Amino acid sequence: METKTMNIKIEKAKTSKIDKVDFDNLAFGNVFTDHMLVCDYKNGSWNIPEIIPYQPISLDPSAKIFHYGQSIFEGMKAYKDENNDIWLFRPLDNCKRLNISAKRMAIPEIPEDYFMEGLTALLKLEKDWIPQTPGSSLYIRPFIFASGTGFHASPADEYKFIIAFAPSGAYFSGKVKVLIEEKYSRSANGGVGYAKAGGNYAGQFYPTQLALEKGYNQVIWTDDNTHEFIEEAGAMNIFVRINDTLVTAPTSDRILDGITRKSILKIAKDEGIAVEERKITVSEIVEAAKNGSLKEMFGAGTAAVISPISAFGFRDVDYDLPEIGDNYASLLKKRITDIQYNRAEDKFGWRVKV
Amino acid sequence: METKTMNIKIEKAKTSKIDKVDFDNLAFGNVFTDHMLVCDYKNGSWNIPEIIPYQPISLDPSAKIFHYGQSIFEGMKAYKDENNDIWLFRPLDNCKRLNISAKRMAIPEIPEDYFMEGLTALLKLEKDWIPQTPGSSLYIRPFIFASGTGFHASPADEYKFIIAFAPSGAYFSGKVKVLIEEKYSRSANGGVGYAKAGGNYAGQFYPTQLALEKGYNQVIWTDDNTHEFIEEAGAMNIFVRINDTLVTAPTSDRILDGITRKSILKIAKDEGIAVEERKITVSEIVEAAKNGSLKEMFGAGTAAVISPISAFGFRDVDYDLPEIGDNYASLLKKRITDIQYNRAEDKFGWRVKV
Ligand SMILES: Cc1ncc(COP(=O)(O)O)c(C=O)c1O
Ligand SMILES: Cc1ncc(COP(=O)(O)O)c(C=O)c1O
Repeated sequence: METKTMNIKIEKAKTSKIDKVDFDNLAFGNVFTDHMLVCDYKNGSWNIPEIIPYQPISLDPSAKIFHYGQSIFEGMKAYKDENNDIWLFRPLDNCKRLNISAKRMAIPEIPEDYFMEGLTALLKLEKDWIPQTPGSSLYIRPFIFASGTGFHASPADEYKFIIAFAPSGAYFSGKVKVLIEEKYSRSANGGVGYAKAGGNYAGQFYPTQLALEKGYNQVIWTDDNTHEFIEEAGAMNIFVRINDTLVTAPTSDRILDGITRKSILKIAKDEGIAVEERKITVSEIVEAAKNGSLKEMFGAGTAAVISPISAFGFRDVDYDLPEIGDNYASLLKKRITDIQYNRAEDKFGWRVKV
Repeated sequence: METKTMNIKIEKAKTSKIDKVDFDNLAFGNVFTDHMLVCDYKNGSWNIPEIIPYQPISLDPSAKIFHYGQSIFEGMKAYKDENNDIWLFRPLDNCKRLNISAKRMAIPEIPEDYFMEGLTALLKLEKDWIPQTPGSSLYIRPFIFASGTGFHASPADEYKFIIAFAPSGAYFSGKVKVLIEEKYSRSANGGVGYAKAGGNYAGQFYPTQLALEKGYNQVIWTDDNTHEFIEEAGAMNIFVRINDTLVTAPTSDRILDGITRKSILKIAKDEGIAVEERKITVSEIVEAAKNGSLKEMFGAGTAAVISPISAFGFRDVDYDLPEIGDNYASLLKKRITDIQYNRAEDKFGWRVKV
């Protein structure tokens, strides 16, 4: 991908923080690089993005982000291969999804070239920050929020689009144990669940805390009406393997259309694995766990990659998943990460060189 | 109410903006007073609040408010009577509701004395900002948001509680025409609809814009499952008068427990009006509009006070409400504002002197 003619001004940081970072012991998303991309929406249009040193943002106390949660984001990663070439995975899909979120949250859409050229320019500047330690990568966080002011509950007239980078290690450390939730819900029919809107995440914190206190790592959400259908987890779509068939819930206006999810579906089909996108009931999973036909469960997402689930809890009973040698999770994880890190042929055309 | 012994530091603004404000032509929530109250949550506890000049807030780009919508707020008003005494209306109920919202959004609760004494101190300092023009008041906006940093989708470790004031005129100008919504939803069973969480408002902006384009002022939300039950509007609870009975939907985890709503219920009963808190179906309202038994509809909320609804739209048909002389909306509005502005006896003990 070539940086085109757009003139992205770069103001360089006076000093770099990179020497202070222990790249062998990265946590997730708490170390930030030296620069960020900033782009302001004012008077009805987006200004040309600029790159500036990573620095605090100053906002009026009445900025609508504080009051009305008008914010959206994306999560991506940049990967460095053995030749120090830098790769993105399906980045245009993130841009398109950001704009789907934007529309639902009454936020002006960001032009694709601002997103792609801004991201590329920032990546070139920060290339030394991309970790090469196995399992680590540069987590990319594009986000847009309402900076316009006023207490009237209506869309803001000004916004900020920012891209920031965090060299990161694994999202989950260790085994992932999930709780199937029946009381609290993540999203409504006709709501904003399919958008990566800030408020969707804050709404999950309290029920997730309750689950953590009981020894689980994540909540699996069910539909808010019957609580009988599996939807997704906090930051991952969910796959279950029943006998040799891989099943995942169809997307809807309550579920995020995950890029990892749809890539896994393609790769699995390519591997000759039987795949079903259909509604999954909780009782079906419990039954399958009891009769031994539930072979695997895993979460799929950019941050979590593919995270095998070791057990799920439902109505105070824990159901352990078997440890099987020939598992889909490892196979699919290897295939997707091999594409991401440029270790294998990219037969679907997903990889983009920076 | 006396300011107690809590030592709230006050840093005064060097100059006041008050002379620049046209108090006879106030809009809603776009002019702010000279000072604000700020209180930081750090290392597991809330610091003593401080009053400082109204000024921008500086935040790290990874502050969780930008990414995960972890924010809550309240809406209150201060009223000045003929003797220049200042009054609040059921302020402790706002504090309690803020803490109910806090719990659901995994935000630490604010101590009641920090809230009440902080608010009182700020009101005393800003008393000249309370408008006396009829229909105007000082709108009070307490809010809490996540200032702690990091891209991990989990609760922040730092928060800011702020109170800011905006001398304000009417929320709606003119007649209010509402659209009964069947496609989009405001909240889920088991969701965060009962909390004054930022994200609940941003989620309404897009469907509300669509309604505005069709000539309506607000959306009336229905349940996300059947879309058959009336819930509430964007910033008001909804009352309907069928023959001589006043009906409003019961509160639930999807509906904000409005302080105006519950006050209206009390006053109406006190007036001998038959009152029902029960589920209301859309078909019942349409039927009542057709057969003439639907006499009134109005919204009730702090910002909107009591806003009579002149018509509602449903499935591309508009239903006009009659203009009746002896209407409940005017009667109830007079009674509640007479209490708020200290023009009548406060038989329920709602008024609090600052
Ligand atoms: C709610 C939710 N579901 C699923 C996913 C997975 O989506 P993707 O594979 O595009 O990262 C994410 C985020 O990354 C998410 O936030
Ligand atoms: C969603 C919603 N419903 C109802 C109300 C009315 O509540 P109150 O009367 O406490 O102001 C408000 C806000 O003010 C609101 O935001």
